Amino acid sequence: MTTDHLARTPKPPYYAVIFTSVRTPGDGGYASMADRMVELAAEQPGYLGMESVRDAAGVGITVSYWTSEQAIADWKANAEHAAARDTGREHWYQAFELRVARVERAYGFLRPSGHTEHAP
Amino acid sequence: MTTDHLARTPKPPYYAVIFTSVRTPGDGGYASMADRMVELAAEQPGYLGMESVRDAAGVGITVSYWTSEQAIADWKANAEHAAARDTGREHWYQAFELRVARVERAYGFLRPSGHTEHAP
Repeated sequence: MTTDHLARTPKPPYYAVIFTSVRTPGDGGYASMADRMVELAAEQPGYLGMESVRDAAGVGITVSYWTSEQAIADWKANAEHAAARDTGREHWYQAFELRVARVERAYGFLRPSGHTEHAP
Repeated sequence: MTTDHLARTPKPPYYAVIFTSVRTPGDGGYASMADRMVELAAEQPGYLGMESVRDAAGVGITVSYWTSEQAIADWKANAEHAAARDTGREHWYQAFELRVARVERAYGFLRPSGHTEHAP
């Protein structure tokens, strides 16, 4: 299902954390940490979903969605998440920007079935 | 410069359009349209910057930044942009979600020089 890449968020308003980053070369434990953070975030109260893409050049955008600013603050305070952020600054990221935003409105499009589907 | 992938946005508040999409297979004029839309957006009043990533599976996230909701509405009303959106629904996109959000706060990180840089 291609639509698994899109978060199924509720009617706005809700909050988004937009994290744009450029990786340093090599893995150095990054991939397993990233998988773990996806898993851990999904367990947090107020989590609504996540969309994440990284290209071959190491540029990535991850957007996570949350019910409230408080839910974002609680996720930031999670000890395992804080440790991952520290290692990110030490090793994994060349640069990043993090933006917290309030989603005001949204709409989507899904191609009617019968058309070609993108390869998984 | 790796930081060219990150938009140099001003102090919040400002607005973000988060566009997450899944492509249909093949190009079909998509790449040249995408380049043109980046160029055209940058000419619009109220444009602040853009961050865009697409992976090999065809999943992409593009976030464009704007001074106001009015700037976003004006960009949406641009005739060339509207024609591109129509072709997107007809041909290029399997699915997408578009969210308009107000950026409330932001911070960034840039690795001090002397460390390794990511390959271009």
